[in-house]
Amino acid sequence: MNPGDTFAGLWREFEPLGRDPQTGGYRRYSWTPADAACRAWFTDQAEKRGLAVEPDNNGNLWAWWGSRVQARADAIATGSHLDSVPDGGGFDGGLGVVAALAAVDLLKAKNFTPERAVVLAAFTEEEGARFGVPCLGSRLLTGAIDPQTARDLTDDAGVTLAEAMTAAGSDPALIGPRDDLLGAISVFVELHVEQGRALAPLGAAVGIAESIWPHGRWRLDFAGQADHAGTARFADRHDPMLPYAATVLAARQLAARAGALATFGKVIAEPGGSNGVSAAVTAWLDARAPDEDTLRDTVTSVRSAAEESSAEHGVTLTVRQESYTPVVRFDQDLRDRIAAVLAGPPVLPTGAGHDAGVLAARLPTAMLFVRNPAGISHSPAEHADQADCEAGVRALAAVLENLAGSAPTASAGSAPAAPTASAGPASAGPAAPADSAGPARP
Amino acid sequence: MNPGDTFAGLWREFEPLGRDPQTGGYRRYSWTPADAACRAWFTDQAEKRGLAVEPDNNGNLWAWWGSRVQARADAIATGSHLDSVPDGGGFDGGLGVVAALAAVDLLKAKNFTPERAVVLAAFTEEEGARFGVPCLGSRLLTGAIDPQTARDLTDDAGVTLAEAMTAAGSDPALIGPRDDLLGAISVFVELHVEQGRALAPLGAAVGIAESIWPHGRWRLDFAGQADHAGTARFADRHDPMLPYAATVLAARQLAARAGALATFGKVIAEPGGSNGVSAAVTAWLDARAPDEDTLRDTVTSVRSAAEESSAEHGVTLTVRQESYTPVVRFDQDLRDRIAAVLAGPPVLPTGAGHDAGVLAARLPTAMLFVRNPAGISHSPAEHADQADCEAGVRALAAVLENLAGSAPTASAGSAPAAPTASAGPASAGPAAPADSAGPARP
Repeated sequence: MNPGDTFAGLWREFEPLGRDPQTGGYRRYSWTPADAACRAWFTDQAEKRGLAVEPDNNGNLWAWWGSRVQARADAIATGSHLDSVPDGGGFDGGLGVVAALAAVDLLKAKNFTPERAVVLAAFTEEEGARFGVPCLGSRLLTGAIDPQTARDLTDDAGVTLAEAMTAAGSDPALIGPRDDLLGAISVFVELHVEQGRALAPLGAAVGIAESIWPHGRWRLDFAGQADHAGTARFADRHDPMLPYAATVLAARQLAARAGALATFGKVIAEPGGSNGVSAAVTAWLDARAPDEDTLRDTVTSVRSAAEESSAEHGVTLTVRQESYTPVVRFDQDLRDRIAAVLAGPPVLPTGAGHDAGVLAARLPTAMLFVRNPAGISHSPAEHADQADCEAGVRALAAVLENLAGSAPTASAGSAPAAPTASAGPASAGPAAPADSAGPARP
Repeated sequence: MNPGDTFAGLWREFEPLGRDPQTGGYRRYSWTPADAACRAWFTDQAEKRGLAVEPDNNGNLWAWWGSRVQARADAIATGSHLDSVPDGGGFDGGLGVVAALAAVDLLKAKNFTPERAVVLAAFTEEEGARFGVPCLGSRLLTGAIDPQTARDLTDDAGVTLAEAMTAAGSDPALIGPRDDLLGAISVFVELHVEQGRALAPLGAAVGIAESIWPHGRWRLDFAGQADHAGTARFADRHDPMLPYAATVLAARQLAARAGALATFGKVIAEPGGSNGVSAAVTAWLDARAPDEDTLRDTVTSVRSAAEESSAEHGVTLTVRQESYTPVVRFDQDLRDRIAAVLAGPPVLPTGAGHDAGVLAARLPTAMLFVRNPAGISHSPAEHADQADCEAGVRALAAVLENLAGSAPTASAGSAPAAPTASAGPASAGPAAPADSAGPARP
């Protein structure tokens, strides 16, 4: 059995789901028919492999290879998310889910039997594209967001998460933290397509994450006064489009100076008539930085620029933080262990949020990145070569084999496990069996 | 009968139609249920007054006081439009239609019998809010737009005018120029709420239009490259939001310098995710100036600024003119005659387009403005005092009485009629009857 065959076959099936025929981009928004198609496909594939699929009531799916009941804080979790940004790429999220299935195939093909259960996760609403809060599925799971707050989140059409879940046949009353499920798991390893262009110059197909930059989303409401574009004198106007435009330019300049990132990708002008001065402009600032001080300083200075320009135009500005994720430093011991398995892959920071970042508050987590030759993501132009995806599958399989087959892994609050000395991906054999009872976690 | 009673009663009935309960603004979009309600109300009111209502196949309604058949190029037309911009005010358009009905009541109450037919017009899609071309109804009527081009216009949901008309029970195959109808009319006088603030400082309730600034609408497509807001380096980005923002600021500055107006009130960012770099930003420039040279120069310089900034960011810019209306100088003789009837009201230029501006290419036209104390229009805050509206009705009645009751009016290509010497609005009695056969017009 050629590992490429399995991945390629799975990818061929998965790739068309939720793809818009016009743009070629993906619209896998949570709780929509496209989402249902992705989930049904994952469930079907897992069951074909004899994995028991368990929904966690938050929209995430968990496919167990080995007994969930017998897992005593020692299960090895992997996976990623199924949803996409508007017209995003097909690899972002989906690659990690498909690679997890392919890695199981690879391990089964070599007759590997895990000592500890391996569980494949498919997360929901990681992008926050529909309900505005990124990593909503993992936040609910870990208790990082209040269930009622989540139920009341609305999409752009005013549909609440509760309504969307109900319409999709799920019960929104059941969402919330699942300590029982988290308590069965010892580590989470997420494979993801690279979203920048660090691996290509290094000639490496696979890298490992060091940290996730702190990042957040701020909503800016510029409230002015609707008026007639043909008759209202400039001096009489309160046009919110002008301070918005000034803020876009200021944000770029201030972030560049600080070594941070700042982006306005979503803007809504109301009422939106082409022959009228806007009554209001609402825009979303996405900001990220290598450290939290830089992020805070950058957002503060963008906000000052927005306030100054708003005052100049007689426009009222309101700024609300919609989400904030502190810096995530992935577990050092787990990273060292994986690095040893993979014979020292490049270690990369990333500006992108991930479910692994949210889970890091509860579990040792790690991420593998698969090379993205152009570095483009959140776009139909996102790409990873088939050979690199297969290298990612082999790397993930080696990591799972090491983690599920050898000594129990470190878990939050416990003493770190010693890095294994085993070799590169394809050759890593099962390590010595160990006791299966990991320490209880909080 | 108190003239105020009639206007106030009519206004009370008309005012709620198409008003959004949330914003208080009007959404009287053409060929929608709100539009149908306005049209049904107008038809009902006209028929109550014994006026025969004739649709012109282009969506405009014509209510005849006197015989359309006998009108030989000498009918006196008045009226305005029923549609609104998104969340516009209730006076813009509607006031001219309601005032026309109230003026008829006023003339009937004093037993005035017109020598020449008086016809009340209710135009459609003057704002271009649904199908993008302002004054669509009057443009179709006069042949200023090709019927097939019009049928193919789409709204934001992709519905064509042809589909919208069909859904509303009208036959789109019949739209197009109506020379027979225009040939029966000698002049058009449109009463409209003022959309700036020129009358208030002068202490005048009613003014008369001198000219309409040349104006147009340009669509700017900034095409960039979608990317991830958290991982794409600034240097690697092609973010179309940045040249858009620079263009907004440049347009304001360049227009202010030239004594022109430039406004961006509609912008669409695609794909619109808050954590992504936009693939494309589409924006509409509304530009107006006192003369065509200034307008052309302003748009050219805005375009240059947009091109320069786009090039800087590796973004492709496409600019398309969506509409253009040359300067309209209202008929001098008709204006002199009306000014004499109204005892010298203030004469104002305006930056707003109107159906009277389109009709001016075929007929002598004039406009009366009713004071707008704050000058705000295209907004729920648009306002005119009831007393000023009533003054407008009296002024319009006096003008109609003069035009329909006295010597035949000047028409395009014919010798101007001498201004009448009659006095102010309330006192203007019927002038001497005249022959009813106006000169044939081209």
